[in-house]
Amino acid sequence: MSETASPAMYARLGAEALGTFVLVLGGCGTAVFAANFPDAETNTVGVGFLGVALAFGLTVVVGAFALGPISGGHFNPAVTLGLAASGRFSWSDVGGYVVAQVIGGVLGSSVLALIALGGPDGYFDAARESGFAANGFGEHSPDGFGLGSAILTETVLTAVFLFVILGATARIASPGFAPLAIGLSLTLIHLVSIPITNTSVNPARSLATAIYAGGWAWGQLWVFIVFPILGGLLAGFAYRPMFSRVLTE
Amino acid sequence: MSETASPAMYARLGAEALGTFVLVLGGCGTAVFAANFPDAETNTVGVGFLGVALAFGLTVVVGAFALGPISGGHFNPAVTLGLAASGRFSWSDVGGYVVAQVIGGVLGSSVLALIALGGPDGYFDAARESGFAANGFGEHSPDGFGLGSAILTETVLTAVFLFVILGATARIASPGFAPLAIGLSLTLIHLVSIPITNTSVNPARSLATAIYAGGWAWGQLWVFIVFPILGGLLAGFAYRPMFSRVLTE
Amino acid sequence: MSETASPAMYARLGAEALGTFVLVLGGCGTAVFAANFPDAETNTVGVGFLGVALAFGLTVVVGAFALGPISGGHFNPAVTLGLAASGRFSWSDVGGYVVAQVIGGVLGSSVLALIALGGPDGYFDAARESGFAANGFGEHSPDGFGLGSAILTETVLTAVFLFVILGATARIASPGFAPLAIGLSLTLIHLVSIPITNTSVNPARSLATAIYAGGWAWGQLWVFIVFPILGGLLAGFAYRPMFSRVLTE
Amino acid sequence: MSETASPAMYARLGAEALGTFVLVLGGCGTAVFAANFPDAETNTVGVGFLGVALAFGLTVVVGAFALGPISGGHFNPAVTLGLAASGRFSWSDVGGYVVAQVIGGVLGSSVLALIALGGPDGYFDAARESGFAANGFGEHSPDGFGLGSAILTETVLTAVFLFVILGATARIASPGFAPLAIGLSLTLIHLVSIPITNTSVNPARSLATAIYAGGWAWGQLWVFIVFPILGGLLAGFAYRPMFSRVLTE
Repeated sequence: MSETASPAMYARLGAEALGTFVLVLGGCGTAVFAANFPDAETNTVGVGFLGVALAFGLTVVVGAFALGPISGGHFNPAVTLGLAASGRFSWSDVGGYVVAQVIGGVLGSSVLALIALGGPDGYFDAARESGFAANGFGEHSPDGFGLGSAILTETVLTAVFLFVILGATARIASPGFAPLAIGLSLTLIHLVSIPITNTSVNPARSLATAIYAGGWAWGQLWVFIVFPILGGLLAGFAYRPMFSRVLTE
Repeated sequence: MSETASPAMYARLGAEALGTFVLVLGGCGTAVFAANFPDAETNTVGVGFLGVALAFGLTVVVGAFALGPISGGHFNPAVTLGLAASGRFSWSDVGGYVVAQVIGGVLGSSVLALIALGGPDGYFDAARESGFAANGFGEHSPDGFGLGSAILTETVLTAVFLFVILGATARIASPGFAPLAIGLSLTLIHLVSIPITNTSVNPARSLATAIYAGGWAWGQLWVFIVFPILGGLLAGFAYRPMFSRVLTE
Repeated sequence: MSETASPAMYARLGAEALGTFVLVLGGCGTAVFAANFPDAETNTVGVGFLGVALAFGLTVVVGAFALGPISGGHFNPAVTLGLAASGRFSWSDVGGYVVAQVIGGVLGSSVLALIALGGPDGYFDAARESGFAANGFGEHSPDGFGLGSAILTETVLTAVFLFVILGATARIASPGFAPLAIGLSLTLIHLVSIPITNTSVNPARSLATAIYAGGWAWGQLWVFIVFPILGGLLAGFAYRPMFSRVLTE
Repeated sequence: MSETASPAMYARLGAEALGTFVLVLGGCGTAVFAANFPDAETNTVGVGFLGVALAFGLTVVVGAFALGPISGGHFNPAVTLGLAASGRFSWSDVGGYVVAQVIGGVLGSSVLALIALGGPDGYFDAARESGFAANGFGEHSPDGFGLGSAILTETVLTAVFLFVILGATARIASPGFAPLAIGLSLTLIHLVSIPITNTSVNPARSLATAIYAGGWAWGQLWVFIVFPILGGLLAGFAYRPMFSRVLTE
């Protein structure tokens, strides 16, 4: 974001902030409010990890359809950096995009916190204690996976995410379908990896929830900043030499 | 709806009534008949909040594909008002659209009531007592969220809904995909907020179910009329100045 | 199907038979094999009514994408009759289509029966006793709904199905999306009504399963032939006068 | 893969390997890590067979959108052979494609094994003992179906898969929608048949998981190589004479 950011750039940054706000509000909100909803008396089941996986994917499906034509619809610093590495996005715009994504994400988790504060007695504290949808490993992994598994999972799955993004938005791809392909790949990624790290692949989403989860989440946050970005960069740099001969991007 | 409504306007109003009928029949019907279906002996699980969220979204996906070309596919007074605020819909047509939506919604919940009356002994009374899919806060929130949480949730999520609608139907958006984007955003909204207010974001849907839920639902109905409309108007008025520089709507 | 059916007509009838085969194999197969799958030890849950609803919808999504260009993708006598009533399908082709649909459906349920016969001891008999996915009312309604509820449900929901089909395939609709709209409307219809009648809206599907469910299902079959067809005809005859002024079909 | 494979062919083989890697990582990964995730205290449910079915379908949806324009998006030897049988793919390229698919699949299951090794004590051994998502019949069928049911299921469902692929990619099909139609048909196939064979319809996926499941899976592997291929070939050879008169492929 140069000092003389154009009006169009402000619109793009607004779209990135709004899209990341929706991603955290919808995806993390489902995890916080609806995943475990228990009601044994009426036999109601919460939406579970399946509902959370669907919610995260739908945030990107709808965000990319609605805001993609304005900003490209990244909503994720690892995506922005991976696209820059692939040559499809300007390195000079990365900083502004990332700042907008972080602001949007924190606004999203803050709205969730406000809603939780209006819940029944003790709701907010219980939501914090159960992690407020933050990402973690070791004792903070939903199923107890260690640091090595977390690193491998976040790196590989973010790389897969970027390969899907780069392929679905290539010039030879079917026009119009990219938001579906990209959003549904995020659902797929969550289906596999919620039990492992609660699924990040997005540093802005991890930061936004670490704020309200507190101490341990801050201490583990670096993993969910470094390795999604690493995976994104690896895929970004690899894509063109792997596929450039058959793609007229 | 002017006094000299044209034949085309009658078709549009019929489409809005039919679409809102389908929204209440499909979305609220799933909540009433299928969400809690218990069968411990065969280990069957009901469709849960995930199924209800999917059903509401699909009502709009299919309604907008089938009827959108006729009426625009609003099926929701908050959408109609938000679109008018954004300049994409004529203020003079708002009244007729809202009346058609309310009529369609009440017809939908009335069919649900008739079906419930043909259920096993006591089914209809039990469905009424468990709320007949009406929206509520406090002791009538599925998970006990208070008025403040309800107001924040309904306002913010309806605003998100309108941002998706306005973005997905902008001139630069991919043609044809808007019904998917808009309907799936309604699924996302339900995934987050069924535990909070049972999810309205649609005054016609709230009114249609309050009729059969009875006393408390009437007393709380104003929240689900005022704040979805507020959220819709806020997004409608904000959209153009936020994004007009990069959109040729 | 005239006595001098053309080669193209044989291809169309083959497509209708194959599509209805897939509908019964996929939709009823999920209901028979996967809906109640119990495994308390590993905490596995079956796909439930949500999975069955999704399966039925997907049979039409994929069948209509793959075979729709050949036959129109009806796979359902109520659809064929409703389309004829609307003027979009030739009455003289109805007979051949219905015969092909019934043959395809019975082949589908017969494959299910063969697979069930290869299950563990007593599997086939247990599947028969739990209804083999047949439709029913009264004591054979999953949740005990009576004949009146079954009639109302099947008539109204089949009419909704036809309105979606007619709208999504109208000349002013977005080209290409009809299979998604129509298939997802079948998922929606199942979400609402599996607890009521196990959801027919398709006489060929009801006949195919009644064969293997035995006595009671044959006795109740008339309901699931008469009222889906009634609903389809009502929507077919109503569509044009309701919407013709704004549609150039 | 001729000895003088062109650079474009290397890109195609890379795309097939990457797509099959994603198929195993996403589909089998969901089965291994997320299907049974138990947490009785918080009432959390795993994603179940429904989540696994969705995951497998989404691997093909996103893989075909992202990589289909490069390689055709087979990710499955039965698909490659079926397409060759139908005349839509060159027999001389079959060998290279199958090798790439097997390599990609094994890399996928190897990443899953590495992640599982970083799980809590005993996680990897428990995953192996519960089958590591391998396919099986008899006592290794999830619900105890025998060899005959496995043969019938795999043959018929792979044939259905190929009919959908051939129809959705025919020249008269709606352009762009094939990845959705094909991927969602794989979800449908899993919804029906996970309880029967854990669903293969793909020899590369079966081989990739047999490696880590150990002894019994190797012994039963032939079934999940022979019959998916048989089903694929049957549909491939049958498609053109059945439908060629109305298709200008």
